Amino acid sequence: MNTMNKLKNVKYTNLLINNMTEEEIINYQEKLLQKQLKYVYRNSEFYRQKFNEAGALPEDIKSLMDYHKLPIFMNKAIERESQKESHKRFGHPFGMHLCSSPDDIAFTGTTSGTSGSPTFTYTFTKQDLNFLNNYISHMLEYGGVHSGDRLLFSHALGIYATSSILWGIRSHGVLPIDVDVRGGSKMILQYAQMTKPNAAMMTPSLALHLIDKARESGINVGDFGMQSIFTVGEIGIGIPEIKKKIENAYGCRVYDYLGELGFSCDSDDYYGIHCVAPDLCIFPNDIVDPETKKPIQINDGSIGEMIITELNLQALPRIRYATGDMVQVFTNECPGCGFKGKRIKVIGRTDDMLIIKGVNVYPSAIKRLISNFIPNVTGEIRIVLDTPPPRVTPPLRVKIEYGANVDESNLSDIEQRIKKVLHTEARVTPEIIWCAPGTLEKALTKTPLFEKMY
Amino acid sequence: MNTMNKLKNVKYTNLLINNMTEEEIINYQEKLLQKQLKYVYRNSEFYRQKFNEAGALPEDIKSLMDYHKLPIFMNKAIERESQKESHKRFGHPFGMHLCSSPDDIAFTGTTSGTSGSPTFTYTFTKQDLNFLNNYISHMLEYGGVHSGDRLLFSHALGIYATSSILWGIRSHGVLPIDVDVRGGSKMILQYAQMTKPNAAMMTPSLALHLIDKARESGINVGDFGMQSIFTVGEIGIGIPEIKKKIENAYGCRVYDYLGELGFSCDSDDYYGIHCVAPDLCIFPNDIVDPETKKPIQINDGSIGEMIITELNLQALPRIRYATGDMVQVFTNECPGCGFKGKRIKVIGRTDDMLIIKGVNVYPSAIKRLISNFIPNVTGEIRIVLDTPPPRVTPPLRVKIEYGANVDESNLSDIEQRIKKVLHTEARVTPEIIWCAPGTLEKALTKTPLFEKMY
Repeated sequence: MNTMNKLKNVKYTNLLINNMTEEEIINYQEKLLQKQLKYVYRNSEFYRQKFNEAGALPEDIKSLMDYHKLPIFMNKAIERESQKESHKRFGHPFGMHLCSSPDDIAFTGTTSGTSGSPTFTYTFTKQDLNFLNNYISHMLEYGGVHSGDRLLFSHALGIYATSSILWGIRSHGVLPIDVDVRGGSKMILQYAQMTKPNAAMMTPSLALHLIDKARESGINVGDFGMQSIFTVGEIGIGIPEIKKKIENAYGCRVYDYLGELGFSCDSDDYYGIHCVAPDLCIFPNDIVDPETKKPIQINDGSIGEMIITELNLQALPRIRYATGDMVQVFTNECPGCGFKGKRIKVIGRTDDMLIIKGVNVYPSAIKRLISNFIPNVTGEIRIVLDTPPPRVTPPLRVKIEYGANVDESNLSDIEQRIKKVLHTEARVTPEIIWCAPGTLEKALTKTPLFEKMY
Repeated sequence: MNTMNKLKNVKYTNLLINNMTEEEIINYQEKLLQKQLKYVYRNSEFYRQKFNEAGALPEDIKSLMDYHKLPIFMNKAIERESQKESHKRFGHPFGMHLCSSPDDIAFTGTTSGTSGSPTFTYTFTKQDLNFLNNYISHMLEYGGVHSGDRLLFSHALGIYATSSILWGIRSHGVLPIDVDVRGGSKMILQYAQMTKPNAAMMTPSLALHLIDKARESGINVGDFGMQSIFTVGEIGIGIPEIKKKIENAYGCRVYDYLGELGFSCDSDDYYGIHCVAPDLCIFPNDIVDPETKKPIQINDGSIGEMIITELNLQALPRIRYATGDMVQVFTNECPGCGFKGKRIKVIGRTDDMLIIKGVNVYPSAIKRLISNFIPNVTGEIRIVLDTPPPRVTPPLRVKIEYGANVDESNLSDIEQRIKKVLHTEARVTPEIIWCAPGTLEKALTKTPLFEKMY
């Protein structure tokens, strides 16, 4: 930890919260929560019904402890049903949990990568957008991106969620150069060269991909002169080798972020997403066991499913929404920047969880642990399943690509070291199947983690 | 003309202009022009140099007549050079003709379908956007789209020009459902079904394409319940058969528009784009001969290259900008709605113009005239060129697809009728080569008009 990193320690977005103790923050969240629960109860048939089913009234919820006793109100499937019903009854797709008039919606975006019909989760009034803009502005400022700067914004635009981030970028006085990824890497590089952006937002996969594509065209991405890159939506820079590769190639810091909820700090090492928005979301003070949905006590390192309860939002606040994302919560002070609030790492999806001899195992955690052995491995793996998850009859079989410059006679030594780490960190002793580099198919978007033999 | 159309006659966007005589409008434009010329002279090296080269000062321009004596300041090629220079000297791509600080740019978009490096023509400050929003709002209101409505916005988004229209849609209180066309027609239809939009913006090609694609999936686009469709960027609904087909299928009125400059009226027949924005652009009071660039006197039906001079804009106003678009200007009162201002029809690109025995012939005009014979023809044509344009040794050879239900024995009769119309309306007597329906390749975007044999 050097002096510069100390200077750039992350703070909460709302400066008042920086003066609060952890207990005061919880108290503040409880006050906002009471207000929000009354609001959603008054303004939506859906939430009124959820409270009725739980045999509770908003007035009954006086603390987070009371709150944790409420059942889960919503998840992706329930959200879809709610949307179907509002479509049929009111001719709008936002769901029965819409709390504002549909006339007051200023922006709608759907979640991106999902299968099935889209959910209009990111639906905001003007007031919502103005509120959310603060968090994006805070992150940009932390990353050294100032009013008057230009930012290469390269996602799949249109109805997708990322587009709402554009409002925050603009409200910060930064000009987005929004090139749809579907235009292809050649076009993205052309716009980067022409507009000389000071920063970029894209997935880590795209940031990596552009390094190679640029090289093929005789371009060095380091010449763009970028100040910072903000990545989203993949584990990506949680893997040290990936963080290092992107930072070295572009000659800048790369930050990981989770919408408006938080971002990683300016440290060489990755210490997770710093949760800067306790006034926007109860998260991460609400994680549950993914199977029983019972609350999990939060200690440093606790793992559970992330439950979203949005405060201060008008249009479509999510309340006790089970995200299906497994996160690990850290409560100690950030070793990188000294941030005193909570941090989280996304460790996978509940749907992907495997159970081996009673132990919960997350494929993405395995992938991350194995990636630490780059360049002895390429980082590409597949978990071979003979029967549908989550239960696996041991041993867990894992295909791993060895690195291009590895002498095969060294494989058994590398194998022992990987097995040891997996045993210690993930409590699993796999059978390793070595594959030649480049033989496991690679996708630019989401590479599958499973090879299904059933 | 029925009573309903009379009620919905188009007005100028700025209500004050509706009370002005044609002479007063010109006077008003001249005042705005004097202010704008001084502004661009003060604020950009580029325009200062153009005035110097012309041996003139902004103060010398007191009337449109004075103005028409100035040479052309700009076209696409000069714009690219200007951009290259600002990129090199100042590290921004907006061009040496940028009149505001790059820090004040709130939006940038490039022109879409062009070849070569993109031009950042659509670059605006916040004030520019607020000003332009009025024109979009006016058009939406004319089309019966009100605050609280939803509008399916299906273009290639990202950096493209159409995205700036989104600002106007939102400022009118309308929620855009912006589905990038690159997501494919299936996705566009899915979002239309889910969100029940009251209106849509897309190219006429896409509107046509969706009719068939919907039918394949058992969907009837008429069930969307749309109120109006606004199309842009193609001749499309200038062809009566295309206008009729779209209106019948969707059960709504379709309007053609040219950015903020104007839109077509609510009449069954197409009477061109009504120029509602004399305070935004000198157009259509400035057309020139495409070869000599000398001003053309504007009478009802005059044809010339459209010169853009933008008034009231701050960031990147175009001044004496030769667009390469050939337009026909109409000065008589609109027979459909009674609009008293000027109207225009886009009739082609200067690059596409052919010269046959000293007569200027526009392929798109030929295509439009032939399309009037649908269903005897499919509407698909190709002009066969043996040598590079513009000069053609007669006869002009035109391939025409006959309609699917046409008995070939009737072709010579149809041919006589087509030849007669082309002779009268386009002053050309072509040789017609009949092709079976579906044999000329069709593209969703821009179908080529020429078949080059050289």
